[in-house]
Amino acid sequence: MGPDATVDFMAKVIAATSAENDQDHARMLVDHNPKVPNRQAALLGDGEDPGPALAAMARGLQDAGAGFLVMPCNTAHAFADEIQAAVSIPLVSIIDVTVDACRDKGAVGVLATDGCLQTAIYQDALAQADIDCVLPNTGEIQELMRLISAIKAGERSEAVALRMRDVANAQVAKGARAIIAGCTEIPLVLTEDLLDVPLVSSTDVLAEITAAIASGAHPIQ
Amino acid sequence: MGPDATVDFMAKVIAATSAENDQDHARMLVDHNPKVPNRQAALLGDGEDPGPALAAMARGLQDAGAGFLVMPCNTAHAFADEIQAAVSIPLVSIIDVTVDACRDKGAVGVLATDGCLQTAIYQDALAQADIDCVLPNTGEIQELMRLISAIKAGERSEAVALRMRDVANAQVAKGARAIIAGCTEIPLVLTEDLLDVPLVSSTDVLAEITAAIASGAHPIQ
Repeated sequence: MGPDATVDFMAKVIAATSAENDQDHARMLVDHNPKVPNRQAALLGDGEDPGPALAAMARGLQDAGAGFLVMPCNTAHAFADEIQAAVSIPLVSIIDVTVDACRDKGAVGVLATDGCLQTAIYQDALAQADIDCVLPNTGEIQELMRLISAIKAGERSEAVALRMRDVANAQVAKGARAIIAGCTEIPLVLTEDLLDVPLVSSTDVLAEITAAIASGAHPIQ
Repeated sequence: MGPDATVDFMAKVIAATSAENDQDHARMLVDHNPKVPNRQAALLGDGEDPGPALAAMARGLQDAGAGFLVMPCNTAHAFADEIQAAVSIPLVSIIDVTVDACRDKGAVGVLATDGCLQTAIYQDALAQADIDCVLPNTGEIQELMRLISAIKAGERSEAVALRMRDVANAQVAKGARAIIAGCTEIPLVLTEDLLDVPLVSSTDVLAEITAAIASGAHPIQ
């Protein structure tokens, strides 16, 4: 959804693929559609419902021949049921694969958009996996939203990265032993070397699983 | 076709777009298909014809709702007529827009694949625009092919960039007053600051025109 997040995701799928030549790489049918109504606004009750647009995109990709779907936008997974209902191919959930990657790390801090946190999609999936979670408070969420907007506008400065690190460290101070980058804009500035705990990047986890499914090395869940 | 070239092209379309939020960005329907039969091999008479696969991809994008087509692979433009014949929407030619960007620069040196140079698509378009061209010799073409293969395999070292610069400079020594990066892998290592003459990157020119057409600022030719 965020334009750079899609490109970042594709680059990570390519990097995660073992290939000796072009033909070894996975084919990706991509509907890079930044015109989907704002997910965040809709979830906060203040904007057009993006569900029908997302469902139509899913159907278009299925019609074009896609064997499975991935969506490198965490917040949009609030509409996952509506998307899945529109197609017969599976949507591999970024939420589920990211939570799976958090097992045995202890309590995890979740950095995500306001809308994503309000729908509790991460909280529910973590609870189901018996993983404790630590959530940003209202002020921290407001800071996250300012930073995500800046990243979407092309900002990649060290200052933004360090402010993102501060929000992550606030969760560590509250007991988090790992941090989920639960918005695909976050890994565009926040890298694990900035933290004292593991960073679970939802983009990276989904890219690795996408490459593995496409190459036949991993079953679709 | 080269996986990184597609991602590089998309990133450049996004960068060339004036946008204040996600929704201002252009929608791109992308068939990222590294499995198209090798264009280079086919043009040299030693491989499966990629024309039918390219035509089918074009039809798929038209069916998915695309308003125009672009293909960030110069060599594949040897099959442009077959692609255009398969659809009713226009294919904006990377060759034509790149040659257009070379006017008033004097003679241009063309760095491209062996297959692309043998089909003379650049030479013909330059001749029609009354632009003199300087071509790499057999040894220089062999070096170019080694470098392009290395870039496709993920190589981005300074050594590769400097060897690419040497091939460019050999054209300058033969009279070129500008260099066309006529293969979308080349700008992944060769940048204008490495040269004493202007570099016309086919990727950059096509990305700028794509963003301008998508925003309505430029007519489709």
